[in-house]
Amino acid sequence: MKRVAIGIDIGGTNTAIGVVDSEGNVLYERKPQMATPQKSENPHMTQALSDSILNKYVANLTEEIKTAIAMVKQINSELEVMGIGIGAPNANYYSGTIEYPPNLPFVGVVNFASLIEKNFPEFKFVKLTNDANAAALGEMIYGGGKGMKNFAMMTLGTGLGSGLIVNGDLVYGSDGFAGECGHTTVVPDGRVCGCGGRGHLEAYCSATGIKRTVFELLAKYNDSASPLANVPLNEMTSKIVFDAAEKGDPIAKEVFEITGELLGRALADTVHYLSPEAIFLFGGAAAAGDYIFKPTKASMERHVLPVFRNKVKILQSELKESSAAIVGASALIWKEIEKSKS
Amino acid sequence: MKRVAIGIDIGGTNTAIGVVDSEGNVLYERKPQMATPQKSENPHMTQALSDSILNKYVANLTEEIKTAIAMVKQINSELEVMGIGIGAPNANYYSGTIEYPPNLPFVGVVNFASLIEKNFPEFKFVKLTNDANAAALGEMIYGGGKGMKNFAMMTLGTGLGSGLIVNGDLVYGSDGFAGECGHTTVVPDGRVCGCGGRGHLEAYCSATGIKRTVFELLAKYNDSASPLANVPLNEMTSKIVFDAAEKGDPIAKEVFEITGELLGRALADTVHYLSPEAIFLFGGAAAAGDYIFKPTKASMERHVLPVFRNKVKILQSELKESSAAIVGASALIWKEIEKSKS
Repeated sequence: MKRVAIGIDIGGTNTAIGVVDSEGNVLYERKPQMATPQKSENPHMTQALSDSILNKYVANLTEEIKTAIAMVKQINSELEVMGIGIGAPNANYYSGTIEYPPNLPFVGVVNFASLIEKNFPEFKFVKLTNDANAAALGEMIYGGGKGMKNFAMMTLGTGLGSGLIVNGDLVYGSDGFAGECGHTTVVPDGRVCGCGGRGHLEAYCSATGIKRTVFELLAKYNDSASPLANVPLNEMTSKIVFDAAEKGDPIAKEVFEITGELLGRALADTVHYLSPEAIFLFGGAAAAGDYIFKPTKASMERHVLPVFRNKVKILQSELKESSAAIVGASALIWKEIEKSKS
Repeated sequence: MKRVAIGIDIGGTNTAIGVVDSEGNVLYERKPQMATPQKSENPHMTQALSDSILNKYVANLTEEIKTAIAMVKQINSELEVMGIGIGAPNANYYSGTIEYPPNLPFVGVVNFASLIEKNFPEFKFVKLTNDANAAALGEMIYGGGKGMKNFAMMTLGTGLGSGLIVNGDLVYGSDGFAGECGHTTVVPDGRVCGCGGRGHLEAYCSATGIKRTVFELLAKYNDSASPLANVPLNEMTSKIVFDAAEKGDPIAKEVFEITGELLGRALADTVHYLSPEAIFLFGGAAAAGDYIFKPTKASMERHVLPVFRNKVKILQSELKESSAAIVGASALIWKEIEKSKS
């Protein structure tokens, strides 16, 4: 009997749902993705309203999961569903809760895993963690981290997430929220971060951070010849910066140099903490290839103690951008199965 | 039969040797400490010379270990010696080697554990790690970290060492050298660190860093009324700064404020990486009590994400300064025994 796991990724806009086998193949994915309920503009969000939105969302999600299972069983009725892995913002692995999510319309602490579990008593595992932790597990179980006992995963998206693997396990820490490297300080009193803090790694080396650096340099040089000078903030992407660099635009190149310098210094800190075998970069910003990898690697090497020099690989994630979220979430289940055996 | 472990701490000047029981009581300690061979001023250190110094040192150490065992067996002939734990600079737990130690007269990579092991084939465990890792194990097995699965230990001495406990185990990383938080960057392009890097935590928040901040402020204010103005660099200690603060000296107080601000920000990074239950501070600088703990705690809380706020304790190490080195080293052995059982 072939074993599969459900992978769910709760994003601020959409919720991805898929069925994944133990090799990381996506057997089914709901297309288009399901809408995630939106945070009300109403400042008087009440507990009752939050509960009602939540219950409706859980009911819809339950139906979608049942549909997903039915769809894959049509193809192969012998499939055994092992559990449901969920990636969500502010998700606590230990308690299965989503806590004070800034971009979801839920008040306080929500017992999300147990709400789902109630509707699927036949599954042994319903597990929750944040999307970057899920991506790290995905990398370990299906991707380039196979066989590695110590590595770090950095997801360079709108934010900068991270998942840390130590001794073959994801680091959840004492409260379930470890691995928030995006909010370590790289520039004291620097840019305001999305979290309200100052100078965080995320404010510089996420896709958003790259965009901000573009505008900093456009302000500095006032270079009307740069192709970047024709793009407004709300339309700027890492891909546009990459294309400009490919055309030889000096501003685009400097953006990647600055980003790599800061990211490399931050990764040197990661090395000093954890001495990982490799650090994987994932996401649109990592797709810029040598433009970002070269300065990052050079900076990391320059900032590590001699004992770590030329030991730590910086690698492109082997997870596919399109399916990483559900594949990563499903990896939670294979990891639970592995743990339950040992 | 009562079980004991040998604890050895190889410092740049002296080597401490002791016998410790499973509760952390020191049953015997060599006094005065044995001299550690000194790095020759001769720039033409050869492999042959290194080998000869090493062999003599290992022979002497072996005799001292035998003496230590004989001494405790005189008191209680029923003692069973479980192994030898060694704290040493640039020590690699996995391979039992000391690698390129900057302050020891050994060239290259030295198979230290196996040299000792050869002389004590009757012991199951001869293990090596650096002193800060050993201190973290000591805290976990005998001190305030008992029962904690996730915590960090920061040793504020001449340097700033750290040992990280994740899921109940010390983090050694892929190569055995993890936990070098002292060399993470807190002030980009800041002070030159002992390692040659710039702006490292160690350059600001170790005892040496505190001393440097004193001289920075003396330069800034040229305050002849400060008691610190009468002390040369080579005589300045954290204790002298503490005493000056107790007398109300504004420079001494500002030194601790600055140190705490930077240390707290660095510990916020530690929290974002690992979400520890507590962070222990050890060493002379930590003895300044509220002068250092208050600004450190305030800064850490200001720099962590809301999800971590008021969750992580900053605690004084419960290890005694005088015996922590050998007690920590001996903890390596109790940890090995624990691992061998599971």
